Amino acid sequence: MPNHPPNLDRVFHALADPSRRSMIERLDGGTATVSELARPLAMSLAAVVQHLQVLEASGLVRSRKTGRVRSCELDRDGLAAAERWIGQRRDAGARQLDRLGAHLAAHPEPQPAKPASRRRRPA
Amino acid sequence: MPNHPPNLDRVFHALADPSRRSMIERLDGGTATVSELARPLAMSLAAVVQHLQVLEASGLVRSRKTGRVRSCELDRDGLAAAERWIGQRRDAGARQLDRLGAHLAAHPEPQPAKPASRRRRPA
Repeated sequence: MPNHPPNLDRVFHALADPSRRSMIERLDGGTATVSELARPLAMSLAAVVQHLQVLEASGLVRSRKTGRVRSCELDRDGLAAAERWIGQRRDAGARQLDRLGAHLAAHPEPQPAKPASRRRRPA
Repeated sequence: MPNHPPNLDRVFHALADPSRRSMIERLDGGTATVSELARPLAMSLAAVVQHLQVLEASGLVRSRKTGRVRSCELDRDGLAAAERWIGQRRDAGARQLDRLGAHLAAHPEPQPAKPASRRRRPA
């Protein structure tokens, strides 16, 4: 199957399925054949191949056929693209907090005036 | 709308749509009303509300209605959950490379034997 460049719509769609995430977790441990990917999953080989196609179309996984065996491996570029987008959001959040911190440092809140001590009236 | 804990299936599904990602990017800059979220998007307010519901169900966004105005803000827990899962994959990949490096260091490849120099036959 051809190797696709990562596309955020497809990457996040591919990651939205628990079976596909578990296939990625398996491939984290190294290359696996389609049968090896299918073994822990309660689904037909045809269903696994369909999930694999989604993973390949997203650029998260690459596969190669040698004889009758298709071996699959993780393509970390897809995960890196997703992580980059999420990281940019975190960085923007941190920048926002930094700006807020700088603003608060430059404009310290005035201390509330001490309430005038009332004299006790003699009982 | 109720606040949902982040769920990876829903978080990644929510992130798989470019309009929803652009709503998140807008909310990165701070709280926004539904109308403000809708302004740059070429879609009806009803469609924006639907996207907002997906974002809230995933735990990526929180909203609150005050009078007739609904104001929305980013809930960074959802993004953090997604980033954590992706980060675990990256860490597993790094560990795999470390193991490979340690293996190669412990079992250095034997240097190939020099080919026996052939004597030139006299011409």
